[in-house]
Amino acid sequence: MKKCETKKDDQLRPVSFQTGIQEYPDGSVLAVMGMTRIICSVFIQEGVPKWLPDESGGWATCEYDMLPGSTTQRNIRDSSRGRVNARSADIKRLIGRAMRSVLDLKKIPGKTIWIDCDVLQADGGTRTASINGAYVALKRAIKKLLSEKKLKSDPVTDSLAAVSVGIIDGKIVMDLDYEQDSRAEADMNIVMTGSGRFVEVQATGEKRPFTKDEFLQAIEMAGKGISQIIKKQEEVIHESSPGHVKQK
Amino acid sequence: MKKCETKKDDQLRPVSFQTGIQEYPDGSVLAVMGMTRIICSVFIQEGVPKWLPDESGGWATCEYDMLPGSTTQRNIRDSSRGRVNARSADIKRLIGRAMRSVLDLKKIPGKTIWIDCDVLQADGGTRTASINGAYVALKRAIKKLLSEKKLKSDPVTDSLAAVSVGIIDGKIVMDLDYEQDSRAEADMNIVMTGSGRFVEVQATGEKRPFTKDEFLQAIEMAGKGISQIIKKQEEVIHESSPGHVKQK
Amino acid sequence: MKKCETKKDDQLRPVSFQTGIQEYPDGSVLAVMGMTRIICSVFIQEGVPKWLPDESGGWATCEYDMLPGSTTQRNIRDSSRGRVNARSADIKRLIGRAMRSVLDLKKIPGKTIWIDCDVLQADGGTRTASINGAYVALKRAIKKLLSEKKLKSDPVTDSLAAVSVGIIDGKIVMDLDYEQDSRAEADMNIVMTGSGRFVEVQATGEKRPFTKDEFLQAIEMAGKGISQIIKKQEEVIHESSPGHVKQK
Amino acid sequence: MKKCETKKDDQLRPVSFQTGIQEYPDGSVLAVMGMTRIICSVFIQEGVPKWLPDESGGWATCEYDMLPGSTTQRNIRDSSRGRVNARSADIKRLIGRAMRSVLDLKKIPGKTIWIDCDVLQADGGTRTASINGAYVALKRAIKKLLSEKKLKSDPVTDSLAAVSVGIIDGKIVMDLDYEQDSRAEADMNIVMTGSGRFVEVQATGEKRPFTKDEFLQAIEMAGKGISQIIKKQEEVIHESSPGHVKQK
Amino acid sequence: MKKCETKKDDQLRPVSFQTGIQEYPDGSVLAVMGMTRIICSVFIQEGVPKWLPDESGGWATCEYDMLPGSTTQRNIRDSSRGRVNARSADIKRLIGRAMRSVLDLKKIPGKTIWIDCDVLQADGGTRTASINGAYVALKRAIKKLLSEKKLKSDPVTDSLAAVSVGIIDGKIVMDLDYEQDSRAEADMNIVMTGSGRFVEVQATGEKRPFTKDEFLQAIEMAGKGISQIIKKQEEVIHESSPGHVKQK
Amino acid sequence: MKKCETKKDDQLRPVSFQTGIQEYPDGSVLAVMGMTRIICSVFIQEGVPKWLPDESGGWATCEYDMLPGSTTQRNIRDSSRGRVNARSADIKRLIGRAMRSVLDLKKIPGKTIWIDCDVLQADGGTRTASINGAYVALKRAIKKLLSEKKLKSDPVTDSLAAVSVGIIDGKIVMDLDYEQDSRAEADMNIVMTGSGRFVEVQATGEKRPFTKDEFLQAIEMAGKGISQIIKKQEEVIHESSPGHVKQK
Repeated sequence: MKKCETKKDDQLRPVSFQTGIQEYPDGSVLAVMGMTRIICSVFIQEGVPKWLPDESGGWATCEYDMLPGSTTQRNIRDSSRGRVNARSADIKRLIGRAMRSVLDLKKIPGKTIWIDCDVLQADGGTRTASINGAYVALKRAIKKLLSEKKLKSDPVTDSLAAVSVGIIDGKIVMDLDYEQDSRAEADMNIVMTGSGRFVEVQATGEKRPFTKDEFLQAIEMAGKGISQIIKKQEEVIHESSPGHVKQK
Repeated sequence: MKKCETKKDDQLRPVSFQTGIQEYPDGSVLAVMGMTRIICSVFIQEGVPKWLPDESGGWATCEYDMLPGSTTQRNIRDSSRGRVNARSADIKRLIGRAMRSVLDLKKIPGKTIWIDCDVLQADGGTRTASINGAYVALKRAIKKLLSEKKLKSDPVTDSLAAVSVGIIDGKIVMDLDYEQDSRAEADMNIVMTGSGRFVEVQATGEKRPFTKDEFLQAIEMAGKGISQIIKKQEEVIHESSPGHVKQK
Repeated sequence: MKKCETKKDDQLRPVSFQTGIQEYPDGSVLAVMGMTRIICSVFIQEGVPKWLPDESGGWATCEYDMLPGSTTQRNIRDSSRGRVNARSADIKRLIGRAMRSVLDLKKIPGKTIWIDCDVLQADGGTRTASINGAYVALKRAIKKLLSEKKLKSDPVTDSLAAVSVGIIDGKIVMDLDYEQDSRAEADMNIVMTGSGRFVEVQATGEKRPFTKDEFLQAIEMAGKGISQIIKKQEEVIHESSPGHVKQK
Repeated sequence: MKKCETKKDDQLRPVSFQTGIQEYPDGSVLAVMGMTRIICSVFIQEGVPKWLPDESGGWATCEYDMLPGSTTQRNIRDSSRGRVNARSADIKRLIGRAMRSVLDLKKIPGKTIWIDCDVLQADGGTRTASINGAYVALKRAIKKLLSEKKLKSDPVTDSLAAVSVGIIDGKIVMDLDYEQDSRAEADMNIVMTGSGRFVEVQATGEKRPFTKDEFLQAIEMAGKGISQIIKKQEEVIHESSPGHVKQK
Repeated sequence: MKKCETKKDDQLRPVSFQTGIQEYPDGSVLAVMGMTRIICSVFIQEGVPKWLPDESGGWATCEYDMLPGSTTQRNIRDSSRGRVNARSADIKRLIGRAMRSVLDLKKIPGKTIWIDCDVLQADGGTRTASINGAYVALKRAIKKLLSEKKLKSDPVTDSLAAVSVGIIDGKIVMDLDYEQDSRAEADMNIVMTGSGRFVEVQATGEKRPFTKDEFLQAIEMAGKGISQIIKKQEEVIHESSPGHVKQK
Repeated sequence: MKKCETKKDDQLRPVSFQTGIQEYPDGSVLAVMGMTRIICSVFIQEGVPKWLPDESGGWATCEYDMLPGSTTQRNIRDSSRGRVNARSADIKRLIGRAMRSVLDLKKIPGKTIWIDCDVLQADGGTRTASINGAYVALKRAIKKLLSEKKLKSDPVTDSLAAVSVGIIDGKIVMDLDYEQDSRAEADMNIVMTGSGRFVEVQATGEKRPFTKDEFLQAIEMAGKGISQIIKKQEEVIHESSPGHVKQK
């Protein structure tokens, strides 16, 4: 497996979103960032969790998992392992929070939005790619329900995207692949809205603490990458055809 | 979602196998039967289960799961449900037995073949489509290891395929889709080798017991379908290119 | 432990059913096939599972387990092992399906039939002996409820029995004991009704695939064995005394 | 179900031990106290738990469970319930401690004695009946291993039996059945050796605290009952025939 | 760590109860017996378990656990171990039964009393110290609810305390510390009411069976110790100040 | 429960560390921030996880839990709930990463540092208070092992502290209590070293995305608070007395 060309430190890997890869969900997208590929599906179903206060309207939740063939060594399933994978639980909560930050849940009373992100292939940045794909699948699903008159108005309040930034050999690098991620001194995941505000910043000094300067530079770079991703998302969201896979 | 054309009762739905949909497994295939689509991946790894007797050589095992977006109503994950899904456990054991029936495990001493079947889209016959795809992914993986001199000889002793047959309104019908399956009076899954022998027959009178005549007719029809599937498999197995997905 | 006499290949081992081995269940039977002995108990209780559609009437379900002293090496309990035993789950589903195939559940509205099969001693064929005993316990329980006017009519639509058939050294052999079962080339479990129709056929080529000819011969032999078992069952079901164990 | 005759308060219910009810365990006994019946089996196997200090010699452990048909309302299995039954865990520890109190584990180096008590029918006093039956099965198993020269000397240091005593309407009553047990004001389980010493006393004021006088009277009565049980046990232990169930 | 002075065999270790160590529970106490220290908290909440019969009034239940730093070797948490700790389950049931024995549950209709005992430091006798502390926390909580008019009358029917007694080198010793407990020949836990009646007696011949004489002596000694503990409890229960920890 | 005085937005709540609250751990501290109180204990034990590469030296890991009495409504235990608490898993990973960031694990070859944080009382900021207390307990434990010559040199490379910052009504507020936390628009946890570098930044726009300006202000304020906490920690770490609790 060869990587065709080396990207620059402040560039994104090739990004794309392929809609309609599954027939049954309300929205479905294959999100691609470099060699990382995520199957994102969205169902909007009747019913809300019991604990949700009545005045909340609806709910949105996310799950994240990795297919066994997504990693260089076979990824062992949670169900086989017999215990919850803390990393997955962490990521699913991050994605859920991010999606809810751009949703006005009062506009989907009595409904739950189920967002599933399953990693088909993992080459770094699966959590940010998941957020990017989930947003597209969400918007496609909303569009479908609006056209079917099952929703009165769009509950999505802003666009949303995420990118990773790391420090490698003292340099700030955006959208790390797996090899880069594993030798990064510090690792950040940044989620922002289309209006340039922060939804989530998670920054960890994996190998060494990082300085304020490094941090500010990373945030700056992330902002630029996120703008580019949002542009890509918009293109796909507004495609007129439903994008459903044809029978072969 | 429309189904393009109605197939005849004794015909298969359109069958295809797309190799190389994942980069990391030794073999990887998207198996398609009608609208049913299965991600099959095979890793051949060092190490065998502790309980395996020394004289056994190696081992082969299978896991099966369904993606949340694979079904018309979102499929709840095993890990969320907090308990083992008996249906999945059943199917993974069927696939494992089928694959081992055409493997000479003495030829892979100290190695385990991990076969994973994950349903991307379910429209009936996921267990038979899984077997069909798993066989192709297995052969591709073996081919890779033989070319890398990691195996001395091919442990696969025969070709292998499976098909479902059901009784609907008293008529024998092959390769049922979900809608047919749910109203079938009886339901059979038949696994055969390229040499025309039976590896597994599972026949259940879901809605009524079935007669010997009906049973014999079903077995006859299955034999024909399996021959056609095996022909399709052979074409893909012998493709020269590795079929890896390109960077976009 | 010696086995008194060798049975012929197309014969059943000695079969018997001892009723009333427990006081509290509505029906209770010790089913004996050779040295295999199963405690079968049936309770018919008010209430149905939540997921059951209203129009279904009632429900019937089965559980299967093995006592620690039932096997030559002590059988480890599921609860000690800390995980579900896939083999038991498989068998309990088979028995449940078989029993429901001869039950008109509309005739037991709002009730659940609980069928428990616990292996006291395992010497091959525990799943078929369980079905045979469960059927007797079921009929005894129904008879009791009919006589107590708790049921209006008999929901059982046909008689039911099961037998195993295997291929050993190329010969078809019926009702295998453990030693035979472990060296059988192929192994089949066949469930039929009193009217000669098939409820379930499970055939696996454990050591080699089997031919159509072998399969047809096996089915033929199973039909004869099942007729003999059904005759034995009928005798016990119609015994006038409740068969309860006396105080000692 | 009728109880034939009323026993006096200071009497035991009818007690018996039927050996050889299972073929495979080293010792197996059906222990009967009134309508309570327990299947007790003992395996003596090579191997000891990892945590056992080297100087300890061997180990003995017990498990206890109830069959679904053992109770008036169907008893739900631990494995179905999905969680450990605290009552069973409690009882298995009591039986284990009691058995180890009369075992010199240094005489079974490297071996584990597995004692299983499974309730076939529960009518009060299942934990004391289990101890009584387990002791008989243990002695039968030891006798077998001694005769096979697999043990050099008998590790059992004393005889052992147990009985329950309760306070009902202010009167001390021995060996309560289920109906008595459920209305007892206080409930005691007493385990003693043949030499008249106490191995375990568990006394609980279920409905009211009890006085010292009541307590002393109960202990006195238990001593008498235990002597009678030990006499019964001795008869069965020294039966010459192995008592194995014959083929029917 | 030195133990200041050696106590006599028939003496208690220093006993004390410090109230108000937590702000939120209705009652909270740090119970100290020698170097053993237990955090006891009581919440009285609306709601009762589903299985509780309507006529029962309310319910009281207890949980017991040990902090990782409470033992000389770090105590592994149940949640990390992935399975239930049988010893803790045993103890929580003992404490629950003891507390309910002095509660008239009809006086707390529709309410559940949650009693939690968490071992801060374990030096023997944690179960008896837990009972002693739980009683104080319970009375403080009841007092608070009475003063807030949330209860009409005090449901506590008697005072309650517990102490351990053991046999060491043939001598009867009260209130064992860990070192003594681990070499005791026999070990007893005795729970009594203020009126001198027994609520629970648990006596085990850990290393050898014990005689009736030894047992009677132990019971005598326990009675004296329990009277002293009850005196200490009463002092603290009637302290006027709520004893809440001040801000630092 | 009254809060004595209102603190200013850019101030910490009263901070203190009480050492020696448990006898057995190598280091033990009660960390107090306002009304939040955490029991922190550290054991340094022989042995490392199996998966740790040989060249890594030693390991450090953390666990976090909340006592049932720590919250206004009783906190249900993980072990009772029967499933892992995702929030706790999240926090324990954060604390573990933070501690390892100031540890040179090569200096503790073959050893594991076990850090336990148990919340005695929760009033906001339990994860940051845990980090602050864990650091003190760690340093105390290291000091003890150095003085006992069990360690050759101090593996701690820098001092470490953490603080929360939130946005309430558009204002930046440090060290939030529970009431403030629950109405904060955005919530940040910041971990820094004594040398002023970042170990971890976790910032979430709970109720609305936040601006870059708000973010920078929050980071600035956190830096000041962390300096103050580190000063407090240093005082306690260098106390000469071991600080063990005396017998009462």
